[in-house]
Amino acid sequence: LRINLHLGLDVVELHIGLADIRNRCAVHSESGSVMVIPREQIATGEYLTRLYVQDPGDVDAKADRTTTPGDEKKSSDKKKRAEVTLEYIFGQANAVFAPYKIKIREGTVPDWYAAYQIGQRMSPKFSSRTPDGVDRIFIVGDACHTHSPKAGQGMNVSMMDSFNLSWKLAHSILGLTPHASENGADTVLETFEAERVDTARQLIEFDAKFSHMFSGKLNAETGLTHDEFLKVFRDGSGFTSGCGLEYKPSRLIWSPQNSDDMVVATGDPINGALTVGRRFLNVELKRYADNTTRQLHDELPSNGRYRLMVLTSSDLLEPDRQSQKALEACATIADKHPAGSIDLAIIHPLKERFEWTQIPSCVKRLAEMRTYGLAKTEDAYKIYGITKEQGAIVAIRPDGYVGALCRLSALDTVEKYFQGCLITI
Amino acid sequence: LRINLHLGLDVVELHIGLADIRNRCAVHSESGSVMVIPREQIATGEYLTRLYVQDPGDVDAKADRTTTPGDEKKSSDKKKRAEVTLEYIFGQANAVFAPYKIKIREGTVPDWYAAYQIGQRMSPKFSSRTPDGVDRIFIVGDACHTHSPKAGQGMNVSMMDSFNLSWKLAHSILGLTPHASENGADTVLETFEAERVDTARQLIEFDAKFSHMFSGKLNAETGLTHDEFLKVFRDGSGFTSGCGLEYKPSRLIWSPQNSDDMVVATGDPINGALTVGRRFLNVELKRYADNTTRQLHDELPSNGRYRLMVLTSSDLLEPDRQSQKALEACATIADKHPAGSIDLAIIHPLKERFEWTQIPSCVKRLAEMRTYGLAKTEDAYKIYGITKEQGAIVAIRPDGYVGALCRLSALDTVEKYFQGCLITI
Repeated sequence: LRINLHLGLDVVELHIGLADIRNRCAVHSESGSVMVIPREQIATGEYLTRLYVQDPGDVDAKADRTTTPGDEKKSSDKKKRAEVTLEYIFGQANAVFAPYKIKIREGTVPDWYAAYQIGQRMSPKFSSRTPDGVDRIFIVGDACHTHSPKAGQGMNVSMMDSFNLSWKLAHSILGLTPHASENGADTVLETFEAERVDTARQLIEFDAKFSHMFSGKLNAETGLTHDEFLKVFRDGSGFTSGCGLEYKPSRLIWSPQNSDDMVVATGDPINGALTVGRRFLNVELKRYADNTTRQLHDELPSNGRYRLMVLTSSDLLEPDRQSQKALEACATIADKHPAGSIDLAIIHPLKERFEWTQIPSCVKRLAEMRTYGLAKTEDAYKIYGITKEQGAIVAIRPDGYVGALCRLSALDTVEKYFQGCLITI
Repeated sequence: LRINLHLGLDVVELHIGLADIRNRCAVHSESGSVMVIPREQIATGEYLTRLYVQDPGDVDAKADRTTTPGDEKKSSDKKKRAEVTLEYIFGQANAVFAPYKIKIREGTVPDWYAAYQIGQRMSPKFSSRTPDGVDRIFIVGDACHTHSPKAGQGMNVSMMDSFNLSWKLAHSILGLTPHASENGADTVLETFEAERVDTARQLIEFDAKFSHMFSGKLNAETGLTHDEFLKVFRDGSGFTSGCGLEYKPSRLIWSPQNSDDMVVATGDPINGALTVGRRFLNVELKRYADNTTRQLHDELPSNGRYRLMVLTSSDLLEPDRQSQKALEACATIADKHPAGSIDLAIIHPLKERFEWTQIPSCVKRLAEMRTYGLAKTEDAYKIYGITKEQGAIVAIRPDGYVGALCRLSALDTVEKYFQGCLITI
C-alpha cells in the first residue's frame, strides 16, 4: 500500500530553512520517512511538489500479491485505503518534518492525492518463437512487468524496452543481422529478451526494497539504518535516470575479460567512465570542421546506426603511429559493412592547430562533420576515463550502449565485434 | 544584381587545408570576393554550402531602384541575369579560391542557383494614427522594408518587427500602459515606430555597403582595403545574429546620461556587457532553490512581463546594507504594478551556503524559483560587466532589451522607470 500525496503546497514556517523542498530528497526521521519529489510549474506560475508518506501500517502490503482469493481481506484493505485522509497525510508529513511545518498554500487546493497498492510481478518470458525457431512475438512495458510508479519508472522502463527491441527488429527486417547457421534464429534480436528480462528483475528487486522504506511499517520496525536508507535512495537514482543500467556480456556486449586488447576506463561509470554494457554518456566537444561547440548526444541521433568512435591518442599527427593506423583500419572496417550501418566518429586531444592534410584522408571522407576536439569547459578524455597517451576505440550500439572498448591497437577485436553484429558486404 | 549559388559541393583538391568551407566566412582576393555560408545537413547526410560570388560586373546594380521606367534597360538586365551559368559561378569561385579548387561532389547536383537583383527600399512610416490620435495601423516586415535576403535578414528583421509590436499592442489592449493625458495616444505603443524605423534604416545602410562587396564591381574598382572588408563583414554579424541592435533613448530606454544613478558595465556589449537599449544576453546560472543549472533565457520566457533583475552585491547577507535594501524596495516597486506585469529575479555572487531566512522574505515570496547563484562554468557578473562589490538593478523589457541599468541605491530611478512603462495600482 502506497500513500501518494500530490499537491501544490508551501512551507509556511521556517526555523532555519528547508530549502530542499525543491530538491528530490527523502527525509528520514524518528517519526518515519517522507519522500519529496519536485514537480513541474503549472499555469498559475506555481510549482507542484509531490510527497510520499508512510501508510498507517495496519494494511497488509502483500495482500495484492496473494494467489488465494481472500475476498474478505481485500475488501477490508480497500476500506482502509478509503480512510486515508488529507489530515492523516499532513499529520504524518509534519511529524517527519518537525520542527519545520508544511501546509497548503492559501488559496490553493491539493492537485491530487491517493492511497494505492503496488503489485510487483513480471512475466518469465518477453518473447516467443514460432516453430521455425525465430522470435516473432514480443511484449514490452506493463505487459511484462509491473512495479511502483515512483519517478515514472513504468513509463521510462517501458520506453527502454521498446527502444531496445525496435532497432534490433529493424536490423533483422532489413537483413542487417548475421543469422546462426543451424536455424533461422536472429542472434542480435535474441538479445532483446535476455537484456530486458534482466533489467526488469533488477528493477523489481530494487523497487521492493525502495517501496519498503515508505510503506508497511514505520522505521523503527524495518530496522533500516540511516546509511542503508541513503544507499537505497542513491541506488534508485540509477534506475530513475536510466543511467544505472549495465547489460550483461553477450554478442552485443564484449566484457573486458574477453581479451587483453580491452581498455578499462578509470572513474565512476555514473559520471561517464566508459564501461562495456552501459550508456555512452554525453560530453561537450568542439567540432573540428566549423569550430562550433556541440553536445555529443545531439550529434549521434538514434537512427539505427552503430558508431565506431575513435578517441585518438596524442600522437595523432605522427604518420604510422597508433592513432593514424587505427583511423585507417577503422575506416576499412566501416567500409566492410553496409553503407550507413556504421558511422565513424573521431575525438582528438590536441590543443595545437592542424589541417585535414595532416591526418588520414579517410577521416574527412567518412567523418568530416563527426571529428571533434575538446571543448573549453569539459575534457572528454577525463570524463570517459581514457588517457590521452593511450586513447581507445569504442563500439557504440544503435541504442547508445557501449558494446566494446578496445585499445587503439586492438583492430582485430573491433573487426570481430562488428562481424558478430552486422553482415559484411 | 546578386549572384546566389546554393549547392551541395565539396573541395576535392586540398593543398594545405581550407577547413573554413564549414565556417561562415568571406574570401577576399585579387580576383574578387566569395562569401561562404554553411547550411544544414540534408537527408543524404551531406551538408549544403551556399556561395555568393560576384556578378560579371556589366549590369547596373541600381537599375531596380530608378524611378524612371527604363523598360529597355530592365529587359537587358534580365537577359544578362539569364546568362549567368554554373560554369561562370564555378569559374569565379575557383579564381578566388586558387590555389584551392572547388567542384560539385560526384553523384550530386547543385541544390539551387540563381542571379537576382536586390531592391533596397523602406516606407517612411511604419504606423498611422486614426483621428483620435491613437496608432491603430501598423506595418511590419516586407511591407515596410526590403533589402538583401542574405543570412535570412528579411525573416529575422520581420520577426523582430512583429515581436516589438506584439507585446506593446498586448499591453495597450490590456490597459497596462500609461496614456498621455492630453490625447488618447499610448506612449509605450508609440515607441514601436521609432525603434523599428531606425533599425530598418541602419540595416539598409549596412546592407548597401555589404552587398557592394559582392556585386557590381570587382575589388580593384571598389577600392575596399582588406581591413575595411573585414570591418563590414564583422559589423554584419551584429545584424545577422540580431545582437548588434541598440535602441535609442526613449520612454522605454533610459540611457546612462540620464542620471548619476546609472551604472556603466565594462566590456563589449556583443559579449554580454549590459548596455541600455541592447538585448540582455543569456548566461548559465545555478538556481538557488534546487541547485540545478539553468540557462537564464529559458527562465525568462517571452510572456509579456517586465523583469526587475537585481544583481546583488557581495553584502547580500548583511542586514540593512545596500543589497537587502534594494531587494525590499524592488519588491515594493513590483507590488505597485498589476500582478504579473513585473517579475522579480535575483542573481547573487556568493560562494558560501546560506538559508532563505538570511535574506529578505520578499525574495522567497516573489522570486523563489528566480533566485540564482553563479554556475561552475560562467561568471554572470563578469559577462554582464558588473562588479560584485557594486551590483546593479536591471529593468528588462518584455522583449528582452535592457530598459534601465542602475546602481543598487538608485531605487527612485527604478520606480520612475516602471511608472513610465506600466500603470500603477
